[in-house]
Amino acid sequence: MADQLPDLIEEVVASDDLLEDTNIANTIAATDAENIALLLESIPLEARLISWQQVPNAKKLDVLVEMRGDPRTTVIESTPLEEWENIFQNVDAEQLLEISDTLPNKLLDIALAAMGKQQRQFFQDASEYKDDQIGHWLNHDVLVLPINAKVRDGLRLLRRELPETTECIFLLNRTGQFSSAVKLSSLFGAPEHLPLVELSEEDITVVKAEQDAVQAAREVQNSGFISLPVVDDANKLLGRVDIVTASELVNEDYERQIMSSAGMDEDEDLFSSVRTSARKRAIWLGINLMTAFMASWFIGLFEATLQEVVALAVLMPVVASMGGIAGSQTLTLIVRGLALGQITKSNQKALLDKEVKVGLLNGFIWAFVVGFIAYLWFDSSLLGMVIGIAILLNIVSAALTGVVLPVILSKLKIDPALSGSVILTTVTDIVGFVAFLGLGSIFLI
Amino acid sequence: MADQLPDLIEEVVASDDLLEDTNIANTIAATDAENIALLLESIPLEARLISWQQVPNAKKLDVLVEMRGDPRTTVIESTPLEEWENIFQNVDAEQLLEISDTLPNKLLDIALAAMGKQQRQFFQDASEYKDDQIGHWLNHDVLVLPINAKVRDGLRLLRRELPETTECIFLLNRTGQFSSAVKLSSLFGAPEHLPLVELSEEDITVVKAEQDAVQAAREVQNSGFISLPVVDDANKLLGRVDIVTASELVNEDYERQIMSSAGMDEDEDLFSSVRTSARKRAIWLGINLMTAFMASWFIGLFEATLQEVVALAVLMPVVASMGGIAGSQTLTLIVRGLALGQITKSNQKALLDKEVKVGLLNGFIWAFVVGFIAYLWFDSSLLGMVIGIAILLNIVSAALTGVVLPVILSKLKIDPALSGSVILTTVTDIVGFVAFLGLGSIFLI
Repeated sequence: MADQLPDLIEEVVASDDLLEDTNIANTIAATDAENIALLLESIPLEARLISWQQVPNAKKLDVLVEMRGDPRTTVIESTPLEEWENIFQNVDAEQLLEISDTLPNKLLDIALAAMGKQQRQFFQDASEYKDDQIGHWLNHDVLVLPINAKVRDGLRLLRRELPETTECIFLLNRTGQFSSAVKLSSLFGAPEHLPLVELSEEDITVVKAEQDAVQAAREVQNSGFISLPVVDDANKLLGRVDIVTASELVNEDYERQIMSSAGMDEDEDLFSSVRTSARKRAIWLGINLMTAFMASWFIGLFEATLQEVVALAVLMPVVASMGGIAGSQTLTLIVRGLALGQITKSNQKALLDKEVKVGLLNGFIWAFVVGFIAYLWFDSSLLGMVIGIAILLNIVSAALTGVVLPVILSKLKIDPALSGSVILTTVTDIVGFVAFLGLGSIFLI
Repeated sequence: MADQLPDLIEEVVASDDLLEDTNIANTIAATDAENIALLLESIPLEARLISWQQVPNAKKLDVLVEMRGDPRTTVIESTPLEEWENIFQNVDAEQLLEISDTLPNKLLDIALAAMGKQQRQFFQDASEYKDDQIGHWLNHDVLVLPINAKVRDGLRLLRRELPETTECIFLLNRTGQFSSAVKLSSLFGAPEHLPLVELSEEDITVVKAEQDAVQAAREVQNSGFISLPVVDDANKLLGRVDIVTASELVNEDYERQIMSSAGMDEDEDLFSSVRTSARKRAIWLGINLMTAFMASWFIGLFEATLQEVVALAVLMPVVASMGGIAGSQTLTLIVRGLALGQITKSNQKALLDKEVKVGLLNGFIWAFVVGFIAYLWFDSSLLGMVIGIAILLNIVSAALTGVVLPVILSKLKIDPALSGSVILTTVTDIVGFVAFLGLGSIFLI
């Protein structure tokens, strides 16, 4: 299916009269929800809204669930109020939770009204956890039996239609507390009167509902199980987190990291309107402008020097950028380590030690190279020395900043993937300019 | 378990005499392979090699499989030759494929000799596919039955120990070609004499072995199935790709994207030796240095102007960096779109149109803001005008480059996540400096 996505995008964008094109409408109707979602995200707004109308009503909810936040909002806003009752006909708690942050209150009410009592309860339970807690993302479709159940009871349970991604029966004690898990596959061939508890898996991890969502999702991915049980503080079984949801959470977290390095978020729309796009990005440009002016202000302190030794103006971007690059390498490594839970107090010291040494080694090498080139270019050994020392200082302080900054930011609950690189480049710009121009003022005038 | 990882890292790094610390050795022995791998990656080289010795032999292979490439190499190199026969005692084709790129030929031979004939065959079959093809990453543990099998045959099959992440029985025709898949859960309660084929899943996707590994892995994640069948050109069943492997492939791809933005790869070791680290990063610094000197060369063309109007030197980093930031936003958006298969010929045109418009809008806004600040700072309306126009030109050309560059790179099979941002900043630096200093030469002298 994914193979055909580019072709479908081509066809839709190239179509002269999308509104009347029954050929495309039929293709869309035959495509699965995930690929319809990718299609809608990939086409300009006008074509998107027409194509959205051509999605069969029965698939619309699944498509909404699969779409990223911003493009989803555009199709939600274009859908007439009277259609929603139809769209929400079979909505369940998990689907509603996926899209609720982009849903106006009016539509949320329609969805809640369409739900059965139990699903509504699930929705409310989940809403009590924040969306970065795993309790927000539970699958409530679980197979449970009392702890004294026998293989016979298990086999009877399996005769009804099984929920997707189900691999275990969870055994609960009288008060609903999770006791253990039995793989469905252990039931085959087992004697009918055997207590299920004797077939329990020994090493299944139990997840707490208030645990960090991404961390819990990674645990599912690494567990070897298809889903893990989730309990509340009192060990009461609330549901499970399955590997499909887990993968979505982990993928979203990676996309957030990638997008936030450019000051955007994972919901960003390829084809948002020009105004929305410009407004969202303006904030990041504005923050960056402030830091750029800060760097300029430091350069301004050396106006007199620059006037006398114009070679400093020519070479100063080299100093700043070498620091920026070296720092971003350290920063990227540490941010990944933080995301994987690998950075602690004591290994941070060891890391700082190692990164500063790497900075010293690379600093000396590049100080020499850049110094030599500058000497050849401007025929001044003093200039070569000045830029060499500035490069060395900047690369070493970049290494220091690259280790310390993300750790501090994450302690302050500020996302280091988002703000780390702006702050780092501000530091390396300023250190670079001040070191280079400052040394220049001393030795070259 | 993951909760305890930071504590364990602390203990290991803080230990006075790791070699003799039986407490830690016991904890490591009781930890699962995934977390031992994370631990080993998180500690300095010396502690890593001691801790590696404390890993029980039976777990060593699993730990190697879980580790990232570079840290894995360090422990492989430290392990004496005579231990390997023991480590490879129960090695299977999939495990060996995971670690084979970091294994010296001598050890590969030991592993192959330890394998049964069938596993060796699997290994050789998989080696015929490149590691970016899904055929390289197959799970060969499949339940198969002939196409005319009955429910009774299926139930009999289930009595043996089932492979992990198994959800379906695959039905094959006489020549071993994949025919259809039957969910284990459909067997319960079905009449014993019913042909299995009547319970077949209708919408299971069949993956081709030569397909792109990450794309196929994403298909598994989105399929709703726990694993998908993989076939060769002749539709012969080769194995399956399960969601655990799929998640590893997708996660690795995301990590590659994140790390390559700083010129590193996903195998990078937190604690590689200073020399290795410095050498690996030096390449990226060297490439960046060339581009920085290129930008400097362009600045050098305007030496005379800079000498006369030193404000240009003070403000030129502002022009370059606004372009760099605006461009990297567009670039990041397009690179994600490419990774998701969302960019095609015709929507690229529409995207270019939209991004240039966003660039124009933000360009005008920030041209005005920066121009006004420059006017106030240096009390020169001409300077304000010059920097305004330069900012506008740079932001618009950054948008253009941000859309066109990654598409060209990916057509040339060059990873846009790796080289996109270097090339982009080179462009925005040069355009920014030349526009600003060029206009300055015309209007300010």
